[in-house]
Amino acid sequence: MKIALAQLNYKVGDLEGNSRKIIEQIRASAAAGAGLVVFSEMALTGSPAGDLLEFDELTGRSEALMREIAAECRGIAAIVGAPSRNRTGRGKPLHNSAWMLAGGEVKQLIHRQVSVNYDVADDSRYFEPGAGDITTGINGLQLAVITGDLTPEGALPVNRRTLPEGVSLIISIAASPFHYNRPLIRRKAIRGLALETGLPVIYVNQTGANTSLIYDGGSFVSDAGGNVIRELPLFSEAVEVVEYDASWSGGRPAPEVVIDEEERDIALIHDALILGIRDYFRKSGFKKAILGLSGGIDSAVVMALATEALGAENVYGIMLPSHFSPSHSVDDAHALAINLGCRADIIPIEEPFHTLEKSLKPHFGDLPFGLTEENMQARIRGVILMAMSNKFGYILLNTSNKSESAVGYGTLYGDMCGGLAVLGDVYKTDVYRLARYINRNGEIIPLHTIVKPPSAELRPDQKDSDSLPDYDILDKLLFRYIEKQNGKQELVEMGFDPGLVARVLKMVNANEWKRYQSAPVLRVSPRAFGSGRRMPLVAAFPG
Amino acid sequence: MKIALAQLNYKVGDLEGNSRKIIEQIRASAAAGAGLVVFSEMALTGSPAGDLLEFDELTGRSEALMREIAAECRGIAAIVGAPSRNRTGRGKPLHNSAWMLAGGEVKQLIHRQVSVNYDVADDSRYFEPGAGDITTGINGLQLAVITGDLTPEGALPVNRRTLPEGVSLIISIAASPFHYNRPLIRRKAIRGLALETGLPVIYVNQTGANTSLIYDGGSFVSDAGGNVIRELPLFSEAVEVVEYDASWSGGRPAPEVVIDEEERDIALIHDALILGIRDYFRKSGFKKAILGLSGGIDSAVVMALATEALGAENVYGIMLPSHFSPSHSVDDAHALAINLGCRADIIPIEEPFHTLEKSLKPHFGDLPFGLTEENMQARIRGVILMAMSNKFGYILLNTSNKSESAVGYGTLYGDMCGGLAVLGDVYKTDVYRLARYINRNGEIIPLHTIVKPPSAELRPDQKDSDSLPDYDILDKLLFRYIEKQNGKQELVEMGFDPGLVARVLKMVNANEWKRYQSAPVLRVSPRAFGSGRRMPLVAAFPG
Repeated sequence: MKIALAQLNYKVGDLEGNSRKIIEQIRASAAAGAGLVVFSEMALTGSPAGDLLEFDELTGRSEALMREIAAECRGIAAIVGAPSRNRTGRGKPLHNSAWMLAGGEVKQLIHRQVSVNYDVADDSRYFEPGAGDITTGINGLQLAVITGDLTPEGALPVNRRTLPEGVSLIISIAASPFHYNRPLIRRKAIRGLALETGLPVIYVNQTGANTSLIYDGGSFVSDAGGNVIRELPLFSEAVEVVEYDASWSGGRPAPEVVIDEEERDIALIHDALILGIRDYFRKSGFKKAILGLSGGIDSAVVMALATEALGAENVYGIMLPSHFSPSHSVDDAHALAINLGCRADIIPIEEPFHTLEKSLKPHFGDLPFGLTEENMQARIRGVILMAMSNKFGYILLNTSNKSESAVGYGTLYGDMCGGLAVLGDVYKTDVYRLARYINRNGEIIPLHTIVKPPSAELRPDQKDSDSLPDYDILDKLLFRYIEKQNGKQELVEMGFDPGLVARVLKMVNANEWKRYQSAPVLRVSPRAFGSGRRMPLVAAFPG
Repeated sequence: MKIALAQLNYKVGDLEGNSRKIIEQIRASAAAGAGLVVFSEMALTGSPAGDLLEFDELTGRSEALMREIAAECRGIAAIVGAPSRNRTGRGKPLHNSAWMLAGGEVKQLIHRQVSVNYDVADDSRYFEPGAGDITTGINGLQLAVITGDLTPEGALPVNRRTLPEGVSLIISIAASPFHYNRPLIRRKAIRGLALETGLPVIYVNQTGANTSLIYDGGSFVSDAGGNVIRELPLFSEAVEVVEYDASWSGGRPAPEVVIDEEERDIALIHDALILGIRDYFRKSGFKKAILGLSGGIDSAVVMALATEALGAENVYGIMLPSHFSPSHSVDDAHALAINLGCRADIIPIEEPFHTLEKSLKPHFGDLPFGLTEENMQARIRGVILMAMSNKFGYILLNTSNKSESAVGYGTLYGDMCGGLAVLGDVYKTDVYRLARYINRNGEIIPLHTIVKPPSAELRPDQKDSDSLPDYDILDKLLFRYIEKQNGKQELVEMGFDPGLVARVLKMVNANEWKRYQSAPVLRVSPRAFGSGRRMPLVAAFPG
């Protein structure tokens, strides 16, 4: 039997649009001779649907549409992820289900049998785990169907003992959001599943980004040894028709998948961010981005990524120099815009800054220039960029990186403005790696932007290193605290300087309130700021 | 036996401070002759601890401190809520436990046996439900101990059949956050529990606010008929020593508790908000608040509440008139400040506005004055207020109400600035009710502020009613959509005008991205904006 793997990009909540997409693909797969087409988890609603799932009207419409989709399944069967009503009268009102469609009707529902609740996953908020048989027969082939990502703990949803006799193939459908280790984690999990059950596995994941979460796709077929024998691309829609055959059930055990948790493939992050930007704009009906260009590395990388995502004609940079801006700032920013072919303009902030200083003079008196005045400059830039955004319909891209966001080295309502924080989950050291990657075929980001010492340029001769530790050390420490939840004592035992640990943890903790109000972050790490990290704002913190 | 109900105010994550508080109360209760003192759920960590619970170092310290607290329990027993490590090797690493302390040691752990995941509750993210015996003997009295709030569905954690023989009293410890129906819901649940089991119940809740969540306390003793026979105050710390006696086991069935979900007791909301403001400042180590005074009702109510919470000497109002501000705005704001005894100053925004207009002129050309310029005024106010806040160490209070926040009638980085959104969960019609309540003993909020038509004053003769429906209708519609998750079709069936429904839902949905970046909201309703409402930002929405 031919089986189509449909790795599609869904819009959250767009039941009508998603169902049209699914129906189109059912027809195309039938035309290509497939006996079965497999869609990802929650394909009809898109993932993550969040509290949309609390609207009874939405789930009613969803069930009705599933019956319409089923009516299209003649001469071809389909497995489609969608919610279904829990009719047991106990627990949460929905199941997270794989809908088995064949013969023009809904043949069977196979529910997700576990719930995971960690990071960005809140299964138990919406879904009641189902029980019962997870197998189904299609064209004489007996399948086991697993809905939803494999649990992070690696516990397998089926094993050799619980799986009924006669199953030849496992279908695993997921909506599994990307982070830089996720493709390998998935491989490892599916290899484990194949080896445990002695069965081949077809894994189908969603692609596309929905605000913070980027779904990488990367669907694949694994033989019974856990070897990948067919693979769909990352970060794009793709459909592949594969022919199930007996050789899949063979295969020597694949080598173990080794994951280095501190390693990150910068090309993957690069591609993920581009998809994240592109889908945020496309799905919210916008085309054009604006951003503040400082001449520094963060805004340069964001502009380069945005240009790749949206096209040079849709990306507009504004340079907002103050009297503290060295001339190279505007020069570097200009050179960048020229390299990218983007429009860039200058709007100096000196005059508005002085007017505001004057307005505040009766209150500030002769108090010295300080952090307040630094913040004021950043906020005036925010006002100007938002005015341009409002007047002409641009989305303002935020350029803060994860290191500065972590320690609060940024101005709320100033450089923290923006609709989307492109680099909010990328540590500064990785921003440099991204810049070098962007320049892999020639200079796009001006070399001077990469080599000069980073600076906020809010007071004379300011440098990041005046108030922050070296980014190499800082980023390692932040990774252990944020991604790995190591506490103060543990960090010191790992060899970090006790004074530095105390200082950095205090900065991170003291700035939860600022991050609470920051733009949604494109998530590329196992723990991004945002809905996956739920820290109290007013608290005494570990360490 | 005498039993002390300890309704205390804990700071999240402050294990040392909270343990000192607990020990102090154990000693005081022993001195008062109590044989048992009961603390609330998660007393040692404070609630909601959020992802602090993912720090192994924190839970290790917590267990060590529990043993230190146990050492204080000589001649008195204590029940203290705290996490404990899950030693089963399966599932989440923690239990949510009631620690039974007696004879100087930890005698028994009774774990929460259910998980609830809805609104702001994420039990399954942190805790593995426990199993086993929930009864314990203290001084010859057999108790059943229930940790954690009763589930929203009203399913009882124990019933007549599952409860072992010989139990005389149920102890229910909770960290149950306030909303305006919560005190009645709790009564109803405890009444149900008492009637089901035929037992009296002691219910101990936490008090105090931790950022968005306000814990109202309101601990009480119910006899076996569900009648409240002793009651602790709302919104404040209190300890009461009660004497268990056989009469508790009697009691005729109490009348059913009837809850009108649309009804709200404005005095309760008033008191909750004051506690919310006070604890936000106290627990974050700040004393002084600043806010923008428009002369309108929202800022007036916030200033009055802040004054009650922090004292008039700690509340500072800034009037920021533009050339669109009618003279009554400053007059009304002035009158308010005088009534409250607060300091208030004027910082006009006309000059900075014109300078910024000039800076943007090369780009805006002759485009007409519009929404952009309205937003610019609001943002200049934001810059000025934040500058005052930064320079002098005030926390800026946000004054947006729930109605305008819902429909996006506010400027991001403008009037949406602030550390805490005091009225972010209060619909406009309830803001008026709050104003009248504040004036119950005489005029504090100037009458003219209450009677004049609401206006943002960002263009000539602007009124809210130019772009928004009547607040009476709007608020009813928003309540059904936000609190009750009624979809478009349902709303029309309820009698709301179809055009209005479409228009309002569209406004609410289109502004998720703005609310994502807004200040934490003091929650007083069953569904506040913030962590209890997790809507996608980029999506197609129901209706």
